[in-house]
Amino acid sequence: MTIATVARHAQVSRQTVSNVLNAPHIVREDTRRRVQEAITALGYRANQAARQMRTGRSRLIAVRIEPTRDGINGSVLDRFLHGLTETADAAGYRVMLYTAGDDNQEIATYDDLLGAYDLDAFVLTGTKHGDPRTAWLAGREVPFVTFGRPWDAPESHPWVDVDNADGTAQATRRLLDTGHRRIAFIGWPTGSGVGDDRHTGWRTTMAAAGIDAADLRRSTEDGIAAGEREMRALLTTAEPPTAVVCASDSLALGALQAVRDTGTPAAVIGFDDTPVAAAVGLTSVSQPLAAAAARCVELLTGVLDGQPTNPHVLLQPALVLRHTA
Amino acid sequence: MTIATVARHAQVSRQTVSNVLNAPHIVREDTRRRVQEAITALGYRANQAARQMRTGRSRLIAVRIEPTRDGINGSVLDRFLHGLTETADAAGYRVMLYTAGDDNQEIATYDDLLGAYDLDAFVLTGTKHGDPRTAWLAGREVPFVTFGRPWDAPESHPWVDVDNADGTAQATRRLLDTGHRRIAFIGWPTGSGVGDDRHTGWRTTMAAAGIDAADLRRSTEDGIAAGEREMRALLTTAEPPTAVVCASDSLALGALQAVRDTGTPAAVIGFDDTPVAAAVGLTSVSQPLAAAAARCVELLTGVLDGQPTNPHVLLQPALVLRHTA
Repeated sequence: MTIATVARHAQVSRQTVSNVLNAPHIVREDTRRRVQEAITALGYRANQAARQMRTGRSRLIAVRIEPTRDGINGSVLDRFLHGLTETADAAGYRVMLYTAGDDNQEIATYDDLLGAYDLDAFVLTGTKHGDPRTAWLAGREVPFVTFGRPWDAPESHPWVDVDNADGTAQATRRLLDTGHRRIAFIGWPTGSGVGDDRHTGWRTTMAAAGIDAADLRRSTEDGIAAGEREMRALLTTAEPPTAVVCASDSLALGALQAVRDTGTPAAVIGFDDTPVAAAVGLTSVSQPLAAAAARCVELLTGVLDGQPTNPHVLLQPALVLRHTA
Repeated sequence: MTIATVARHAQVSRQTVSNVLNAPHIVREDTRRRVQEAITALGYRANQAARQMRTGRSRLIAVRIEPTRDGINGSVLDRFLHGLTETADAAGYRVMLYTAGDDNQEIATYDDLLGAYDLDAFVLTGTKHGDPRTAWLAGREVPFVTFGRPWDAPESHPWVDVDNADGTAQATRRLLDTGHRRIAFIGWPTGSGVGDDRHTGWRTTMAAAGIDAADLRRSTEDGIAAGEREMRALLTTAEPPTAVVCASDSLALGALQAVRDTGTPAAVIGFDDTPVAAAVGLTSVSQPLAAAAARCVELLTGVLDGQPTNPHVLLQPALVLRHTA
């Protein structure tokens, strides 16, 4: 199995296959996709050792694996990890995992890993305001890309993210379009980039429809129990909502429980389209996780090829309609 | 943070901490657990580079990540991977991921990885009859441990597994104890080690109770739709079952759907205690995945220390009772 086999299968030149593997940013999107499909279909793997000798790279990237939490929201990063490993593999990179309890532990681990292994780059997930991890890596000129944007300075490093605000805006519009006016939002306390973004999509869409919904916003920690408690409280107010947009499927599952227990017909929309949402028929916002992972690998390749800019990619989510809205 | 800190916290000697890290098989189980807990609580990490110099090991182990399938059964291996990375990390090992479409691709990947990286060992999941992967690794004296037993020759390499037959036996006994006699089993076609084992637990428990249930066994591919179809067929027979044990949560979710759609009160038990089972209130058999991962790392450390035997560990699952049985 050689580059020539892949080239024949994809009906491109060998140089184009080589470019897709080594400098994908200079290849046209449709060509790149055709070659990637040929690589996947043929099970082609670049000879890592030979390439390392040629490029001086280890072709090893590190990514943190989060602790398992409720098994619902954790599935999002697991799906991203699957996508990342598969795309990296096709591009001749391997993924190394590490764990860390907090940001300081994670930074200490960077230090350990860089001392012990010949790593090419890091992929970081879950960015936050004033992220000390990206500052540490940037200060040492370690190549990295984040899944999640730098909330304070968009141009500071390469990143891929999903437009969370657009996701909750789509959810809110769906509810407006199906006749709802009293649409609540159950989200997380102010301060997290992702949480604030998901809140913004609901708030601006309601405002654009001329609806004052300030009394219908609830902030809480994540989890099924919290979602149930907040929805129950909303349903017992003088003017209860007829629908709710939630910042996560966990919150939405709890809200759905409250709706069913109280016998109200309120519509419920979650966020992340987890396997649990599919199993219970919950309408939910889906993040394009495989695409996000593929773009992370693509940006990383550009960074490693010395591309001078800090590119970023903002992907659009999609609303998956099921039975609850 | 040094070994002395961990030793003080766990109230053991520094040598004992060192033994837990380097030769855990010579440490008593309760002591080992206390030290591991101290390591986790303190976030201690062995200095990998220093240890590699001392031991001549890369402290890098490779494990395959499976493609995402329905997001239900896939969560089992994801949870195993989380546990493996966390335990490996505490023992000073890092996990490298790889993908493979089939056994031949996986063997080709072993070859690639061993040529390109200084790997210590592999952890394999999903063993099968006449597994070509274990034969390849054993033939080249590459250290490995499997999560899943060698079905044809129990002593051929180190392994950790869960007693699947005991899981379905517990499920079947629960149904017998709550008055059921017509207990069906929906599983997979004969031939897979795990599938046959799960079938055996139901069959032998029914036989021990003196019940002929041969007409209540159904074999199908995995999935929600397959479970629904088979349960619907069972419920429309002349003597329908009043309960069903399923070989997976996917099959059980489908069976539950058939039960609800047909308005029968049949009990349903799944296998693997996935997040989806928790969300819908499905009674299910739970595999001790964190423990399985920890034992894999422990056996691997023994193998790498040149332990001459092929140890194996069979863990017991537990039935998690919810609303459906």
